[in-house]
Amino acid sequence: MREQEKVFKDPVHGYIYVHDPLIWDLINTREMQRLRRIRQLGTAYLTYPGGEHSRFAHSLGVYEVIRQVISHFERNGYGWPAEDRRLAYAAGLLHDIGHAPFSHALESVLLTQHEQWSEQIIRHPETEVHQVLADVAPDFPALVSDVIGKRYPGRIIVSLVSSQLDGDRLDYLMRDAVMTGVDYGRFDLPRIVRILVPKHDRLVARQSGQHTVEAYLLARYFMYWQVYFHPVCRAAEVLLRNLLERAKHLVRCGEREISPFSALNRLLAGGYGVADYLAVDDSLLLAAMHSWRDHPDGVLADLSRRLIDRHLPKYFELQAPLSQDRLSAVVDLVRTAGFDPAYYCTVDEIGTVYYDYYLGAQTGTHGDGLFLWDETSGALTEMSQVSEPIRAMAQETKRKVRRIYLPEEVAGDPRLSLQLNRWIRP
Amino acid sequence: MREQEKVFKDPVHGYIYVHDPLIWDLINTREMQRLRRIRQLGTAYLTYPGGEHSRFAHSLGVYEVIRQVISHFERNGYGWPAEDRRLAYAAGLLHDIGHAPFSHALESVLLTQHEQWSEQIIRHPETEVHQVLADVAPDFPALVSDVIGKRYPGRIIVSLVSSQLDGDRLDYLMRDAVMTGVDYGRFDLPRIVRILVPKHDRLVARQSGQHTVEAYLLARYFMYWQVYFHPVCRAAEVLLRNLLERAKHLVRCGEREISPFSALNRLLAGGYGVADYLAVDDSLLLAAMHSWRDHPDGVLADLSRRLIDRHLPKYFELQAPLSQDRLSAVVDLVRTAGFDPAYYCTVDEIGTVYYDYYLGAQTGTHGDGLFLWDETSGALTEMSQVSEPIRAMAQETKRKVRRIYLPEEVAGDPRLSLQLNRWIRP
Amino acid sequence: MREQEKVFKDPVHGYIYVHDPLIWDLINTREMQRLRRIRQLGTAYLTYPGGEHSRFAHSLGVYEVIRQVISHFERNGYGWPAEDRRLAYAAGLLHDIGHAPFSHALESVLLTQHEQWSEQIIRHPETEVHQVLADVAPDFPALVSDVIGKRYPGRIIVSLVSSQLDGDRLDYLMRDAVMTGVDYGRFDLPRIVRILVPKHDRLVARQSGQHTVEAYLLARYFMYWQVYFHPVCRAAEVLLRNLLERAKHLVRCGEREISPFSALNRLLAGGYGVADYLAVDDSLLLAAMHSWRDHPDGVLADLSRRLIDRHLPKYFELQAPLSQDRLSAVVDLVRTAGFDPAYYCTVDEIGTVYYDYYLGAQTGTHGDGLFLWDETSGALTEMSQVSEPIRAMAQETKRKVRRIYLPEEVAGDPRLSLQLNRWIRP
Amino acid sequence: MREQEKVFKDPVHGYIYVHDPLIWDLINTREMQRLRRIRQLGTAYLTYPGGEHSRFAHSLGVYEVIRQVISHFERNGYGWPAEDRRLAYAAGLLHDIGHAPFSHALESVLLTQHEQWSEQIIRHPETEVHQVLADVAPDFPALVSDVIGKRYPGRIIVSLVSSQLDGDRLDYLMRDAVMTGVDYGRFDLPRIVRILVPKHDRLVARQSGQHTVEAYLLARYFMYWQVYFHPVCRAAEVLLRNLLERAKHLVRCGEREISPFSALNRLLAGGYGVADYLAVDDSLLLAAMHSWRDHPDGVLADLSRRLIDRHLPKYFELQAPLSQDRLSAVVDLVRTAGFDPAYYCTVDEIGTVYYDYYLGAQTGTHGDGLFLWDETSGALTEMSQVSEPIRAMAQETKRKVRRIYLPEEVAGDPRLSLQLNRWIRP
Repeated sequence: MREQEKVFKDPVHGYIYVHDPLIWDLINTREMQRLRRIRQLGTAYLTYPGGEHSRFAHSLGVYEVIRQVISHFERNGYGWPAEDRRLAYAAGLLHDIGHAPFSHALESVLLTQHEQWSEQIIRHPETEVHQVLADVAPDFPALVSDVIGKRYPGRIIVSLVSSQLDGDRLDYLMRDAVMTGVDYGRFDLPRIVRILVPKHDRLVARQSGQHTVEAYLLARYFMYWQVYFHPVCRAAEVLLRNLLERAKHLVRCGEREISPFSALNRLLAGGYGVADYLAVDDSLLLAAMHSWRDHPDGVLADLSRRLIDRHLPKYFELQAPLSQDRLSAVVDLVRTAGFDPAYYCTVDEIGTVYYDYYLGAQTGTHGDGLFLWDETSGALTEMSQVSEPIRAMAQETKRKVRRIYLPEEVAGDPRLSLQLNRWIRP
Repeated sequence: MREQEKVFKDPVHGYIYVHDPLIWDLINTREMQRLRRIRQLGTAYLTYPGGEHSRFAHSLGVYEVIRQVISHFERNGYGWPAEDRRLAYAAGLLHDIGHAPFSHALESVLLTQHEQWSEQIIRHPETEVHQVLADVAPDFPALVSDVIGKRYPGRIIVSLVSSQLDGDRLDYLMRDAVMTGVDYGRFDLPRIVRILVPKHDRLVARQSGQHTVEAYLLARYFMYWQVYFHPVCRAAEVLLRNLLERAKHLVRCGEREISPFSALNRLLAGGYGVADYLAVDDSLLLAAMHSWRDHPDGVLADLSRRLIDRHLPKYFELQAPLSQDRLSAVVDLVRTAGFDPAYYCTVDEIGTVYYDYYLGAQTGTHGDGLFLWDETSGALTEMSQVSEPIRAMAQETKRKVRRIYLPEEVAGDPRLSLQLNRWIRP
Repeated sequence: MREQEKVFKDPVHGYIYVHDPLIWDLINTREMQRLRRIRQLGTAYLTYPGGEHSRFAHSLGVYEVIRQVISHFERNGYGWPAEDRRLAYAAGLLHDIGHAPFSHALESVLLTQHEQWSEQIIRHPETEVHQVLADVAPDFPALVSDVIGKRYPGRIIVSLVSSQLDGDRLDYLMRDAVMTGVDYGRFDLPRIVRILVPKHDRLVARQSGQHTVEAYLLARYFMYWQVYFHPVCRAAEVLLRNLLERAKHLVRCGEREISPFSALNRLLAGGYGVADYLAVDDSLLLAAMHSWRDHPDGVLADLSRRLIDRHLPKYFELQAPLSQDRLSAVVDLVRTAGFDPAYYCTVDEIGTVYYDYYLGAQTGTHGDGLFLWDETSGALTEMSQVSEPIRAMAQETKRKVRRIYLPEEVAGDPRLSLQLNRWIRP
Repeated sequence: MREQEKVFKDPVHGYIYVHDPLIWDLINTREMQRLRRIRQLGTAYLTYPGGEHSRFAHSLGVYEVIRQVISHFERNGYGWPAEDRRLAYAAGLLHDIGHAPFSHALESVLLTQHEQWSEQIIRHPETEVHQVLADVAPDFPALVSDVIGKRYPGRIIVSLVSSQLDGDRLDYLMRDAVMTGVDYGRFDLPRIVRILVPKHDRLVARQSGQHTVEAYLLARYFMYWQVYFHPVCRAAEVLLRNLLERAKHLVRCGEREISPFSALNRLLAGGYGVADYLAVDDSLLLAAMHSWRDHPDGVLADLSRRLIDRHLPKYFELQAPLSQDRLSAVVDLVRTAGFDPAYYCTVDEIGTVYYDYYLGAQTGTHGDGLFLWDETSGALTEMSQVSEPIRAMAQETKRKVRRIYLPEEVAGDPRLSLQLNRWIRP
């Protein structure tokens, strides 16, 4: 009897099946285990109490979706490069290994990108993932890194990891919907898998699956508005980013030992390596904020207390960009109320947020469109050419949403709020 | 201790709660029990094996949704006419009591409408529902009938039973989605309930619920394409309608005793009353088809065998209406193959099917739009004014879908199919 | 590209996957399609409105479970006779093909067994299933019949179709639980599949799956009490059985044309063949009852009206078997009230009902126990040897439950009910 | 219009409804927000990736269950002390406010109990929860504390928070089952709520709900074995406890500044107050372990690395308690392999784990039994008197489960493992 397959129980996929010992070994590396301590949705759990799931669970899920797609290809005898199966599994599992704590806020403060870090960690000879991958073949880590970096020549493998229908998106949309409880972010994942075909070296959907794909794209649209760009979720992100900016500012002004954690301090200072990067996780950042509650710098201490005790900034929706005059007036008001506007008055708009719903072929974040394949004619048609709701959704994204975030003390003060309303509303 | 509430276990709502003995008594009438023998989705179970649920379960569900909405109004202290609560419950529960077997096909053959039959049954002094209602007050049956007929002056009560957000639609969309397993027809029903407000004497949704309403309308759109207008579901409906037309034709040509069931025979003949109408259900119609398998009329016998053994007609999608010439050519082909085109060659298009997705204010099937209510300004805005996907969905409905249904023997014959393709495709 | 796999959407398994054209052809036979018109749970839909699913959906489900188990065996390289795969699929799909309408009541009146009919239908040269099977090989129908009849020498194949962990039970328990909404009848089906191993020529469960198996057996226990032996579900069965007994009695007294359906009449008369048996389904039986509402025989007419309008008999729980004296007293009372006790006074007890929960090795309905396999030692242990709750459950079944069913007019009459209580309660 | 009810989306209850502003204000206190940073299941997320939910979500859930039960009482007109509604809500919401990080391990090391801390935090005049409660009435904090401490004279209120059917258990069992994905830990919560009645000043279940209660108690049994006492879940707990014991040992030997966090240091040292206790959460403990990876004490450093990188100890099941001789032999072996047995050789048995399944009236953890109420006679019967499976389950708990945990280096060494097997197995 061969070695028994291993499984993980999972609230999204039911079970995650692992047959290949390589995958098992990768899961057990220190770098993968670190993802258990990084929340998938950053600070969104402050809005959706169920949104407490980790990058680890998501990474297993990406692997599982890719496994299901490949199994579907092989069961139906579709031509595809079977020798690259492990490569696809490994790249799917590891694509987020470079994620910074709290998902996106720290990245934006450090001006770094998790995709590049994923590649660096995989290529770095001292990481455990590198060593496990190198046991397959000396160049295997580089191949995995190439798939994640989209340089690998086998485009279909790249598509499984990064495209409009990749394992990454299919898992995170479904997982975030299930965990936050946002029902209409759900879609029919088994049917999505079933309509996928490898054609012209990319992942496309059968024509007959048009409405399934529409439903999936609309689920993305809903998740975007109900979770990813939810005004209260954004409030927490704005607060966290300002807090980290302040910490960075203080470090760069000379306070090198700002936190009890040297790796975090080096990150904020700017000169750091893979080991430092990997030493930081959500718990470290939260613990740093705990230690900053009584920091001599009033701004850092105050913002830390606000985040930990969940006193989030309040927001006003802006119909149009504020004129320079009006923005100055608001800034003055915030300053007069005793707050440093650099950290307490933030304009947040689409574009500053990780942006992910479908825009059609030219402008998609992954640079590629989503195509339907006609079984009889063999032709490929781009989704927004055939579906009115999808075209409309793409239109809607042009609508700018802007919000201005201010401390509750300012936004909630009836006198100030009157003035604010005058300046903010046209 | 008051009488304990009663419940029904239900796959959609979990439980259906009944406190009012009136509702309990109505459920136990003969006319309500008849709905247990009428499938909610007609012949759709021939395509979706799970779609075997009855009008009875749906009717309980409509009542339950209305109960939840009213409880939400009362819990939140919204002003609404509480004295009409029972009226709303009863009208919701009974609105479908006049449904003909197999839901829509028989209606179209008899040129009758279930809404009118619902009213007639409620007003008819000899039905059990009438008697139970009349025990409340002599004019109560007439009031319930008025609500169903939308003549009742309390518009909010009418809205609970028939409007863009009524209990009927909210239940059947969700139920049909759950039972057929079409995941993306699901929406967040508890949240829909929570965003409803009675304003300006109608049921409107809070502004903050815009995306919830969008998701609900899009679920309608998906159910329409995946179930209600699914080509195979339509095939069975087309077959059933042709079969019933043939039976009616034979009856009207003089064969009064066409089936072993006198009530059914009278229905087909045209002179029938409430008792006859109520005596007919799905089982009677199916049993009649069983008895027609060996009927001397070859068309009736053949169509009955095809329906019972599930040999459904095949279809071709038409890009544009067929020219008269081409249609004649197809008709000739069908006739040459030995089939009577009147019963074996059917063009099916949107408009012939019960049509239900949202078209905006002017054109909605219930004549009214779906409005968002701005809590601050008090203004109402119609959905397609603010939502691009909803506007697009309404546009899409202008796209005509036409299909021509033919017997498998014709459609599947390679020689004929070649000719057909030439005539049918432009 | 090979032919694309086909699927059915299913509320229990999500999707049912069909790769083998044989299975597809079997599904499309007339005999399989007939199962769409036979309710899985007989009259239970009169108690659980959701319990309206058919034997057809269940039969697909049995096939799907067997497909999953075999795929699990093959994926994990367990030794098993792969050449018998189609045989297992076909036998699973067809095992219920001989079911009579309303599942069990007619069987008990006709003193026939659906398992034998399944075999007969498969072996009969004129049925479509026979012809499809015979296309595989001339002796294939006989092999399939042997598997269903448990005579096939490959015991593992037989176990997949009939054993304590067979596809039949695994599907119907789960399906009945899902459809009736009885949550605690659910169990973890994917995990059950995963712990199965073919050992010593039978289907056993890995030791590590003990609690999974316990949960499955307890789910059976709960379904038994909450659905299969629910007092109101039994009330409808008792009524239906009495009604059919009366019809049989009248036929055997000479009224050969009791219903408009000659096949049903021949069934009740006793001399009938496969074609007659297959011509009868739920709709025919219901339509017969419709026609009997005005039958000159008062008992048949009354029982038909009661069933169709859902006026079910009422019950009293009996602590012990009634003494002959007391039973006579009750019978007299029923007769005095104007009802024929042979059809209106029924004692229902465990043993008269299709009995299915686990009793340990010796006494199981399928004659075999449920065994755990210890991976290290290779030993097999029977479940009730290691699990206290399972042993206890088996004990509990010794508790006899007896109920006496009487017409509401008798049971609800306060004067009679007083006397009844005196006689019935000790 | 009254203030709109507020809701939280929740994966277990769908929505959590908050009408009372007191509850809203309590949720927004610093002490409640701290529970967002304490995982409900401690280290179980290292075994069940989905088990990442917090005490905060659970606390909302307890409140919601209590709200549903009270609403059911009031809807059905059951007599109960409505004036204590807020008290029940507040006590349910706050009962876990004193939980230490990682749920149970730190408690056992500090020899403290979260229930007492909950009371202390509520009574302490400087906490925000105290201040919010005291705004209701000066003695309100004391009343809430009395309910949690089971000293409050209104026993029914106490029962809602602590009894065999309390909101605490009903929520955590269901939540843990949903989040870990252990299907058979689920039960029918809405039906449990519906069968509850306040009788004889306690919370009892209607007789007719016997099987519902059985299913709930069996779900507890399964959760116990599949999650709470799962050997790998216990491995992580054993490792964490040993690690914390080592840290405490070092502190008590003089290393007062063992971590960067003074509050944690004071906890480990033994002299600490409410503020210190509240300053510690999961993130602080994890961050401390990060800082201990390079600690000069080899044991602390090694255990920290093992926990963070998930190198859990391995286990052997013991059939019987090890004799002193054999235990000494194992201890020697561990020592010889270079590990300090005090921290690397742990016997774990039932009784050392938070123990929670039903044992009958005398021995239940909350000292009280679970009773069924007969509506006709008014009698109460204890569950294990009427239900064989429940009696059996209670028996089964007498079965001692003992495991010995050792480092992988020892347990996995084939030579050592041979010796171990000889000593450990009888």
